[in-house]
Amino acid sequence: MTAFTVQQLAELVAGEVEGDASRKVEGVASVDRAGPTDLTFVVDERYAQRLGPRSVGACLVAPGMRLEANGTSYIRVESPELAFSKLLGVFHPEHRPPSGVHPTAIVGRGSRIGAGASIGPYVTIGDDTVIGDGTLVGPHTHIDDDVVIGNDCRIGPGCTILHDTSVGDRVRIYTGVRLGVDGFGYTPGADGLTRIPQVGRCIVHDDVEIGANCTVDRGALGDTVIGQGTKIDNLVHVGHNVVVGDNCIIVAQVGIAGSVDIGAGTHMGGQVGVAGHLTIGAGARIGGQAGVFGDVPAGETYSGYPARPHRESLRASALTLRLPELFRRLLRLERRLEGDGE
Amino acid sequence: MTAFTVQQLAELVAGEVEGDASRKVEGVASVDRAGPTDLTFVVDERYAQRLGPRSVGACLVAPGMRLEANGTSYIRVESPELAFSKLLGVFHPEHRPPSGVHPTAIVGRGSRIGAGASIGPYVTIGDDTVIGDGTLVGPHTHIDDDVVIGNDCRIGPGCTILHDTSVGDRVRIYTGVRLGVDGFGYTPGADGLTRIPQVGRCIVHDDVEIGANCTVDRGALGDTVIGQGTKIDNLVHVGHNVVVGDNCIIVAQVGIAGSVDIGAGTHMGGQVGVAGHLTIGAGARIGGQAGVFGDVPAGETYSGYPARPHRESLRASALTLRLPELFRRLLRLERRLEGDGE
Amino acid sequence: MTAFTVQQLAELVAGEVEGDASRKVEGVASVDRAGPTDLTFVVDERYAQRLGPRSVGACLVAPGMRLEANGTSYIRVESPELAFSKLLGVFHPEHRPPSGVHPTAIVGRGSRIGAGASIGPYVTIGDDTVIGDGTLVGPHTHIDDDVVIGNDCRIGPGCTILHDTSVGDRVRIYTGVRLGVDGFGYTPGADGLTRIPQVGRCIVHDDVEIGANCTVDRGALGDTVIGQGTKIDNLVHVGHNVVVGDNCIIVAQVGIAGSVDIGAGTHMGGQVGVAGHLTIGAGARIGGQAGVFGDVPAGETYSGYPARPHRESLRASALTLRLPELFRRLLRLERRLEGDGE
Repeated sequence: MTAFTVQQLAELVAGEVEGDASRKVEGVASVDRAGPTDLTFVVDERYAQRLGPRSVGACLVAPGMRLEANGTSYIRVESPELAFSKLLGVFHPEHRPPSGVHPTAIVGRGSRIGAGASIGPYVTIGDDTVIGDGTLVGPHTHIDDDVVIGNDCRIGPGCTILHDTSVGDRVRIYTGVRLGVDGFGYTPGADGLTRIPQVGRCIVHDDVEIGANCTVDRGALGDTVIGQGTKIDNLVHVGHNVVVGDNCIIVAQVGIAGSVDIGAGTHMGGQVGVAGHLTIGAGARIGGQAGVFGDVPAGETYSGYPARPHRESLRASALTLRLPELFRRLLRLERRLEGDGE
Repeated sequence: MTAFTVQQLAELVAGEVEGDASRKVEGVASVDRAGPTDLTFVVDERYAQRLGPRSVGACLVAPGMRLEANGTSYIRVESPELAFSKLLGVFHPEHRPPSGVHPTAIVGRGSRIGAGASIGPYVTIGDDTVIGDGTLVGPHTHIDDDVVIGNDCRIGPGCTILHDTSVGDRVRIYTGVRLGVDGFGYTPGADGLTRIPQVGRCIVHDDVEIGANCTVDRGALGDTVIGQGTKIDNLVHVGHNVVVGDNCIIVAQVGIAGSVDIGAGTHMGGQVGVAGHLTIGAGARIGGQAGVFGDVPAGETYSGYPARPHRESLRASALTLRLPELFRRLLRLERRLEGDGE
Repeated sequence: MTAFTVQQLAELVAGEVEGDASRKVEGVASVDRAGPTDLTFVVDERYAQRLGPRSVGACLVAPGMRLEANGTSYIRVESPELAFSKLLGVFHPEHRPPSGVHPTAIVGRGSRIGAGASIGPYVTIGDDTVIGDGTLVGPHTHIDDDVVIGNDCRIGPGCTILHDTSVGDRVRIYTGVRLGVDGFGYTPGADGLTRIPQVGRCIVHDDVEIGANCTVDRGALGDTVIGQGTKIDNLVHVGHNVVVGDNCIIVAQVGIAGSVDIGAGTHMGGQVGVAGHLTIGAGARIGGQAGVFGDVPAGETYSGYPARPHRESLRASALTLRLPELFRRLLRLERRLEGDGE
C-alpha cells in the first residue's frame, strides 16, 4: 500500500487542510478504528467526538464543523462521505486484469472485442456479439449470440448473458448473475402446461449494478428493462417484461413478478415481493419484506403484508399487539352489561 | 426473420382464414403493438376492440368471436393463445448448437453421449454418466458421476448436476441450477454440529422445467423428487426428501424445507415458504409470500402468515386495518358505561 | 457397496451387539423402509415399534431402550443418531477426486497448492493464493488473488471466491457460492448514486458450511465474518460487515443486511430477513420468515412480522383470526346500549 501526504489527499478531493499537511497517511479506517496513519471521515460533530483525544492520520470533515484539537490533520470538503469514497479507491485501486483475450477464451464468428477489453480465461462468447472498449469479463462467464455489451463494464466470473441481451456503459454485473433468462410463461394445453416461447429481450442501461446470483428474465414479447443508474443487490429476481426505472435501489432477495412497472427513484427493502402487472410510482419506498399486491402511488412509503401505507401498517401492527387487552376490556363490558341486565 | 403468408400460418395451427389469406406476415407482437405485418392474438371480443381501426398482419381468434372489420386477416382457431404460442416458435426458433462434443469438453470413463446431443465448450462430465439423445448441455456445466439425463433435454450454461441424479426426457434446466446438492442435516455432537451424510438421490421426471439459480437438494436417505410436468421459476430452494407432485407451478424464490410432500397440480406464488415435514394436498393454491407452518388440504387456497384459508386471511387482514376504529368504539362504550356508573 | 457384519459395525461405533453379531448388513435405510440386510436406527421406543415384526439387518438403539424381539440384531450405543451418521459415511464414502492439479486448471504466480489437494478441471486460481493440504476444489471454480483456503476443505463446482478472502480448515463451500462479493454501498452524488469501494475482507472460520448459491459480501471497511462451526443452508445472503458467531444455524434463503451482529449458537429459520445494523444475541432463535427490524435479546425466541417474542406473535396471530367475532360482540354491545339510551 502506498503512502500519501495529507496535502496530496486534500488535492485529490479539492479540500483544505487544517493541521500538518505533510503528515503521512497509509491506510483507511472507520472513525472508531482509525489510527495515527489512517484516513477517516466524520459526517457531523457528534461523530467527530468519537475521535476523542486520538490523533489520526487525516480526517475528512464538512465546512462548518468545529474540530477536536487532538493533533489530527483535518481536510475540509463539501461532502466528507463522497470524498472518503473517492480516496478509498485511491488506497485500494480495483484490480484490473491485463487487456486482451485470454488464450483459453472462445470467441464466436462475427463477434468484436473492444480496445482495452479484458476477456478472462475460459470465457465463452457466441456469434455476432459486441464487447465494448475497456470492458472486463471474468473467468467462466458465458456470453451468448447477438449480445451487445457497452464500454467500461465489469462482468464478474461465472455469469451467463443470454442471446439478444443489451448492456449499456459502465455497468457492473457481479459474479453468478443470469441475464436474459427465459421467463416463466405457460399455457394450459392438452398434455399439461405448454411453454410459451420467450422472444423479447433483456435491456440493461448505463451505470446499472446487478448483484451476485441475481436472475433477470428476458421479455416474453416485449422487453425487460433495467433503467439507468439503478442498483440491484444480491439474489434478486426480476421477471419478464418488468420495467425498472432509472436510479432505483433494490435490496437483496427482492422478487418482482412479470410485467411490473417501477418508476424512477424507487427504493425497495430486502426480500420485498411484488405481484405481477402492478405499477409502482416514481420515488416510492417499500419497506423490507413487504408483500405488494396492489399498485403503489408515486412518492408513497408502503410496508407490511399485504403492503399498505407505512403509517397504517405501523398502527395496525402496534394495535395487533394490544389485542389481548382489547379482548379483556370487551369481556369486562359484556359482564357489566349482563350484570345490569339481571 | 422469414415471412409467411396468412394461409401458411393458418395451416400450421389448423385454423381457418377470414380475410386476405395471401397477406405477408413477418413478425409477432402483442395486440397493443401489432403493426401491418405482425401476427397477434386476442382471447375475447373485449381484447379484439384494442385493434380498433388498425389492420394488423394476422390475428388469431376463437371460433365464436365477432370481429372488427378493419382489414385484418383473421385466423380462427380453438385456442388462440396456444396457437400463438406455437407460432412464436415458428418465428423465433430456438437456437440449437451443433451436435457433438466440443473439443474442450471433458467426458469421464464409461460415460455415454446420445445421438444428436450437443455438449458445449468446457463442459465437464464425470464417469459412468449417460446423456440422452438430442440433449443440449451448455458451456461450463458440470455433470458428475453416475448421472442419467434423458432425451431432448436442455441444460443451460453454468449448471451443476451432482452424482446419482436422474433427469427425465424433455427437461429444461436453466442456467445456474444446482441439482443433487447435499441437504441441510446436522446432529449435535461432542464438537458442535456433526454433518449427516446425505446419501439419497435427486430425481427429476419428464417435462419438468427448473428456473435459473435454483437449488434442489438430494435426499438424506430416500430421494428428492420433482414430478412430471412441474414448472419451477428462478431462485427456488427445494430441500432434501421433498416430493413435488406432477404438473405443479412453483413461482420464483419459493423455499420448501425438508421432507415436504406436495400433491399434483399445486400452485405456489412467489416467495412462499413451507416448513419441514408438511403435506400440501393435490391442487392446493398458496398465495405469494405465504408462510406455511401446517398441512394444507387438497384443493384449498391458502395465504398469509401464518398461512390459513384465503378468505380467513383476507378478512383478518381487512379487519386489522380497522383496529383503530375498534379501539375508538370500545373506548366510547367504556366511557358511556363509566358515566352510567357515576 | 461393501457388506459388513453387525460385529464390524458395532466396533466402528463402540457399540454392544444384542442378537446375531455375524449377520451381514449391506445398506442403510430409514426405520420405515429398512429390510433384512439394512442398517437403521431408532431414537426411542415409540420409533422402535415401527419395526414391528420385521427383522432388519441391524438397528442402532440407545442404552436403556426395551427392544422388539423380532430377530433384528441390535447395536446399543450412546447416541444412535450420531452412530448412524457415522456409519452412513462408511456405507457411502464421499467421492474423492485424485490429488493434484488438473492439466486444464490455471494457477497464478506465487500461488501454492497444498499436499494432497485436488484442483479440478478448468479451475482458475489467481496470484499469491494459498490452497491448504487435502483441500478439494471442484470444476469451474474461480479463486481470486490473495485468497487463503485452509486444509481439508471441500469447495464445490462453479464457486467464486474473490480477492483477500480467508477460509479456515474443514470448511465446505457448496456449488455456486460467491464469497467476498462487493457489498451494496452507494452515496448520493452529483450524477446519481456513487459506488463506495468495498475494501474489507470476507473471513470464514473453521468447520463452516455454506450452501449452494449463497452470497457473502466482503466488508466495506472492516470484515464480514462467519464464525467457527456455523452452518448455512442454500441461497442465503450475508451483507457486508455482518458478523455471524460460532455454531449458528441459518436455514435457506435467509437474508442478513449489512453490519448485523449475530451471537453464537443462534438459529434462524428459512427466509428470515434481518434489517441492517441490528444485534441478535447469542442463542436466539428466529422463526421461519420472521422480519427482524429490531435487536433480539440473547436466548430469546422471536417470530412474526415484525418479529417479536414468539408467544406474543402466536397470541396476536390467534386473536387476529378472532377479529370477526370481536366486531360482532362489540356491535351487540353498542346496539344494546343504544337501546338503553332510547
